[in-house]
Amino acid sequence: MKLSEIGEFGFIDRIAPLGLIRPHNVIRGIGDDCAVTKIDDNACLLVTTDLLIERVHFMRSWGPANILGRKSLAVNISDIAACGGVPQDAFVSIGVPDDVDLAWLDGFYAGLAGLAREYSVNLLGGDTTRSLTDIVINIAITGIVASDEVLLRKTARPGNIIALTGPTGLAAAGCELLLRGENALEPWAEALKAAHLDPRPHVPEGRYLAKSHACTAAIDISDGLSSDLSHICKQSGVGALIFEEKLPINHALREAASHLGRDPLEWVLHGGEDYALLTSLNQDAFPSMEVAVAERGIKLVAIGVVQEAPGIRLQRRSGHEEILVPGGWNHFVERREI
Amino acid sequence: MKLSEIGEFGFIDRIAPLGLIRPHNVIRGIGDDCAVTKIDDNACLLVTTDLLIERVHFMRSWGPANILGRKSLAVNISDIAACGGVPQDAFVSIGVPDDVDLAWLDGFYAGLAGLAREYSVNLLGGDTTRSLTDIVINIAITGIVASDEVLLRKTARPGNIIALTGPTGLAAAGCELLLRGENALEPWAEALKAAHLDPRPHVPEGRYLAKSHACTAAIDISDGLSSDLSHICKQSGVGALIFEEKLPINHALREAASHLGRDPLEWVLHGGEDYALLTSLNQDAFPSMEVAVAERGIKLVAIGVVQEAPGIRLQRRSGHEEILVPGGWNHFVERREI
Repeated sequence: MKLSEIGEFGFIDRIAPLGLIRPHNVIRGIGDDCAVTKIDDNACLLVTTDLLIERVHFMRSWGPANILGRKSLAVNISDIAACGGVPQDAFVSIGVPDDVDLAWLDGFYAGLAGLAREYSVNLLGGDTTRSLTDIVINIAITGIVASDEVLLRKTARPGNIIALTGPTGLAAAGCELLLRGENALEPWAEALKAAHLDPRPHVPEGRYLAKSHACTAAIDISDGLSSDLSHICKQSGVGALIFEEKLPINHALREAASHLGRDPLEWVLHGGEDYALLTSLNQDAFPSMEVAVAERGIKLVAIGVVQEAPGIRLQRRSGHEEILVPGGWNHFVERREI
Repeated sequence: MKLSEIGEFGFIDRIAPLGLIRPHNVIRGIGDDCAVTKIDDNACLLVTTDLLIERVHFMRSWGPANILGRKSLAVNISDIAACGGVPQDAFVSIGVPDDVDLAWLDGFYAGLAGLAREYSVNLLGGDTTRSLTDIVINIAITGIVASDEVLLRKTARPGNIIALTGPTGLAAAGCELLLRGENALEPWAEALKAAHLDPRPHVPEGRYLAKSHACTAAIDISDGLSSDLSHICKQSGVGALIFEEKLPINHALREAASHLGRDPLEWVLHGGEDYALLTSLNQDAFPSMEVAVAERGIKLVAIGVVQEAPGIRLQRRSGHEEILVPGGWNHFVERREI
């Protein structure tokens, strides 16, 4: 049997039970954005790791090395943000083929260190080795969060408001433009490419949600809205109703959809790598949160509600409800190269 | 310029200054076996990460998947041991080409989880993704150590005894036998292959050294005795004198040297991946330590002394002293495939 037959998430379910050997102090192991362990009575350590492989996750030709350095760290910081934490120390492993020159590596580390400075993250270690064909990048990162502020996936409750801290689908549209290889000069195209190549981890948003004590669950949009919402729903034992009319679709996305003959809603629902946060919030607290976030320059867009019945439903503008099948990124099952 | 022109260690020196963005609580960043940060007044967190790439660090054909799973974790646990710590939680990233089947992955994780159980290490997370050609494995691991028990590389002092917690050169000889592809059935050959494929991290040794308060510096033998000793010497601003007659060369190594027409001393001095600990110890404490370790079933073999003059000298059996040039593993400069 091949991994492609059960997929990444099937495989995670298969190995997760092997891992918990010493349960003392472990709040959360395999299955969330970060592992969460107790440091003391007041604080938890967060740890997460991400592996990026050339020609699977990125093409070297898509942009300068410093932008890839930024993204490699950003996707890890995003996992800390999804758990409500403050990112701390990063550990960068890189496998380098012989055709990569030192100038490329200097650029990569300059970009990485630049983003690290923006988020006060130390680069405290790693591993540098040869690779025969593709650039391989693995970053592990730690974070800190107060014990009563940890955000998990498994704690959404029926009646909660489902909200996003930013738009989705932009990175997927940008990825499609990059794959087409056009040197589009229109600002909307450049904005979408930038959404894919240089995403912003939503740390202030995660910290606001954590401190609000009104957030019941959170995840970052790495696989796609439908997939990531299904992770929250399955782990929380709930379902969800999403309203099409509430889903943010910006000008750039409409332009790209028109240009490429695509339905922008497909990108919004299933496109990954936007790294906005998807969260469930206590209904009573939501109105005051909408006011509070505006004062902080943070976005919080309600797009649906958590329901008891399992599964995800999409209410179209017509009022018709349909089943939304999670269809985001899966490296193994979908066989997409990028 | 290529990475091969400056080597892994030249590159580490180049990027290390970029990394320390928030020095508060950082005891040690890039340049030791682990990063060391303060958790509270009494304890430090250790973090280390290692990247293994197929055809650079291992061949799939060399052994069953479970042995590779064990080694992937062992080399990380060894870094925690070298800092005197107790290993805690591991995070396993794996990139999997399409020709790897689920049975191989199950074997890999079974081996990994088996070693994790032996050392009470949790497997709390990771990342699973596709790879196009080679299996890619990155493990990050945390450890805990009391603040006054941290072992570093940079604190060796002139007059210290240099000691090993186990023999060196066995893994390198085993690697050579594996590269020749012979199905040798002699016990000595199997022992050497096992030394390469299934190394034991020296955690009890590291804990004993840490608690002794007589250990001034430590490192694990991953690059080779001469290279790893030169790391201690350079970082401590000292030199070393090693005595050929004190270097342990066992029966298996002599057999392999005779069989392959090699000088066993080359393996002992320059062969990597044995994962014994190399340490410097207070001269006054050493006699009582020799007695104490014997009672614990731990080995501690004195092989030299730390000196003020930089560089490493080897005293041959004849009494003649010669300069020992560090010549261990370097993935980039030496261009060795394995």
